[in-house]
Amino acid sequence: MHSTRRARTAGAERGEERERPEPSNEMRRRLVHLDLKGAPPRAAYLAEVLPLLRAMGATGLLLEYEDAFPYAPPLEALSAPHAYSRTELRQLLGRAAELGLEVVPLVQSFGHMEFALKHKEFAHLREVKLFPNALNPHKEEALALVRAMIDRVMELHRDLRWFHIGCDEVYYLGEGEESKEWLQQQGNTPEKLCLFHIKAVASYVVSSYPTVTPIVWDDMLRGISEETLAGVSPVMGIWGPTAGAAYDLGLCCRPGCGEQRYDHFSVLCELFPVAIPSLAVCLQALENGGYSEKVKENVEKLLGMSNLELDTFMSTSTGTFPGSNILTLVTQVSFYLKSSVDELLERNRYVTGWFSPYHRKRKIIHPIIMHHFQPDAISLLSKWNAVVQDLQAAMEQVFHKCTVEEWMEENVHPSLEKLQQVVDDLDKAIKAQN
Amino acid sequence: MHSTRRARTAGAERGEERERPEPSNEMRRRLVHLDLKGAPPRAAYLAEVLPLLRAMGATGLLLEYEDAFPYAPPLEALSAPHAYSRTELRQLLGRAAELGLEVVPLVQSFGHMEFALKHKEFAHLREVKLFPNALNPHKEEALALVRAMIDRVMELHRDLRWFHIGCDEVYYLGEGEESKEWLQQQGNTPEKLCLFHIKAVASYVVSSYPTVTPIVWDDMLRGISEETLAGVSPVMGIWGPTAGAAYDLGLCCRPGCGEQRYDHFSVLCELFPVAIPSLAVCLQALENGGYSEKVKENVEKLLGMSNLELDTFMSTSTGTFPGSNILTLVTQVSFYLKSSVDELLERNRYVTGWFSPYHRKRKIIHPIIMHHFQPDAISLLSKWNAVVQDLQAAMEQVFHKCTVEEWMEENVHPSLEKLQQVVDDLDKAIKAQN
Repeated sequence: MHSTRRARTAGAERGEERERPEPSNEMRRRLVHLDLKGAPPRAAYLAEVLPLLRAMGATGLLLEYEDAFPYAPPLEALSAPHAYSRTELRQLLGRAAELGLEVVPLVQSFGHMEFALKHKEFAHLREVKLFPNALNPHKEEALALVRAMIDRVMELHRDLRWFHIGCDEVYYLGEGEESKEWLQQQGNTPEKLCLFHIKAVASYVVSSYPTVTPIVWDDMLRGISEETLAGVSPVMGIWGPTAGAAYDLGLCCRPGCGEQRYDHFSVLCELFPVAIPSLAVCLQALENGGYSEKVKENVEKLLGMSNLELDTFMSTSTGTFPGSNILTLVTQVSFYLKSSVDELLERNRYVTGWFSPYHRKRKIIHPIIMHHFQPDAISLLSKWNAVVQDLQAAMEQVFHKCTVEEWMEENVHPSLEKLQQVVDDLDKAIKAQN
Repeated sequence: MHSTRRARTAGAERGEERERPEPSNEMRRRLVHLDLKGAPPRAAYLAEVLPLLRAMGATGLLLEYEDAFPYAPPLEALSAPHAYSRTELRQLLGRAAELGLEVVPLVQSFGHMEFALKHKEFAHLREVKLFPNALNPHKEEALALVRAMIDRVMELHRDLRWFHIGCDEVYYLGEGEESKEWLQQQGNTPEKLCLFHIKAVASYVVSSYPTVTPIVWDDMLRGISEETLAGVSPVMGIWGPTAGAAYDLGLCCRPGCGEQRYDHFSVLCELFPVAIPSLAVCLQALENGGYSEKVKENVEKLLGMSNLELDTFMSTSTGTFPGSNILTLVTQVSFYLKSSVDELLERNRYVTGWFSPYHRKRKIIHPIIMHHFQPDAISLLSKWNAVVQDLQAAMEQVFHKCTVEEWMEENVHPSLEKLQQVVDDLDKAIKAQN
């Protein structure tokens, strides 16, 4: 389920004949989307990276908090155990301000509400009883929850100009019982239902925080006619850019850091330090009007990489930027761990021919054949254990333990455990001979 | 460790100038090598197949007994639990005689002695203490064991003209303590050591059974000079053909049934019923002087197959010969089981993105996403369970339960268990939600 939202401007969506003010050069914004619903980096690491983002050409940050925001009671259930503390967040926002990075907070208020609706105390606010993704737009209590979240996030920010209320990918909208009834009434459509809720949330932002303009992702509004949208667009203000894309360009550029998960329940996407080179290229390309040799050289210089080309990712060192050791080690794991273990277990003819599941279960091993692959298996295991140990240490500098554990379970353990298991089984079979 | 033995004639090995009588056409022999060290078919199935082998063009059988022969005490440890009974074997040999199929028994007497030397009571007869493959040629007791085996096998046969004493792939020969000492003496070489033992075994056959000619595989003798071989060749008589190859052609043809395992400890090779089409092609090609349309038509008619071409193996029925249902089902499993399970587990984006090892361990499942793959997983599992049940029943008609179990563990269980596991984990994760 790849994200369906796009960085398009309202003008581009609604026809070129519509007038739209062209932003001046100094108004061009290049926001980096930090999606904190997966693998939120430690505050100390983010503070270290902010100057680099600035140097790479970012003018601001789009902070999608999800469960990493320190919600105060009675909303404390919304915060994950690894959420930032209020102090950490204040320091981080202060550092961004010092660097001239404009911050746009993003609080989902319609779809992508799993982090709230998965909890028992909020489950009654679901659009469809069984699905925790979307809020029921008919419940006053649902809107109250959104208002409270917005207030808590506003409190921690100073000098906001924009506030992003999400509203992308509201799957199953209109399929709840109350929506079905509402849709029975003449003139009512799912599009109107969508706008009805967006308008309620946006109006709250505008009325409670008059200096702040609410913005939304555009994907839910794409199919809606101009006529239906007409009375609403003033509330929208400008529409949302996505990661690293200047809002005035209409680009679809999404560096790997744009999303760290597709949704709250999915696997992790690319880790932030691993995505830094492609993020740097995007930002530099936006700043310089496209990709060029100059962009490549700038990025190599900024990141301390001798060559951006993919084959050099195989080398032992890939840059001097914060977290570059993670890029190096993740690359080794991604390219070689599974393939080297599969090579041994599925294509080494001594293993496939003499140490099959049948033999392993029965602890049978040919005393000659074992000498043909035991040393390779042991040395491969010891090599990968060393790489993984280094990676674990490097990741713990940047991520919380739960993230490191999740990444390891997903990307390392399946292959490493298979390898460990064959070494253990071999050991048991050899012992069983004596 | 593919077999290194080849079907070459002594003449071809020792130079073309050496005289060798050309066999007349009626002397041309096409022996089918039944390697019983893996997946020995049930006697009833073999009896059913013998007329087909005759019709396919076989003139005889090379029966490599290994542990499937019913050795009488004190050698009873050499027989596997699934060994043929004396009655079964007598009936089978009688049936072969009725059909005019000449039987050549094969009893290993040097290398490939794992089925004997793996047992504690024979372990002291190993050439190298740790390796159960080769016999120590210096021990009188080792030769006595071979003599006893030959006697037991001779007893059950009538009218033998040839007796194959194996002697291929004698790995680690010369590396035992006694051999090392022996090799210290002037003029002694590993080749002489090899010939010394082969000569001892062959002499025993010649002297005890004057009407029977001993034959050996040629691979251990290939590097030996004519000079060294000189005094020995009369003992050799003719040298061994391999499966399905007429001894006078010098062919290297090895149909799949040639070996059912590479060695006693390895995985199973192709099952006999699955190898029947290629065996039929080899025999018909030998009988007709090469492969041709005529050969193809003959084989299709003999086996009741509408088309021998590989793509028709995908169809639901592949022939009317005994065991053809096994060919059909094994083909389905071999081509589709692993690939269909891997497709679901490694390339279905709902599974890889939302039901990773991390999610499965923690019983986390997105209530929406599960609907995207649970029906597919359940239907795939049920389809394969049905195929496997049919295959199990078909195999039990042809093989002993231990063979069926071994084949299933090697070729079916790894993928089927992975599939069952994901269905079970999904079930648990869904239950954990409620």
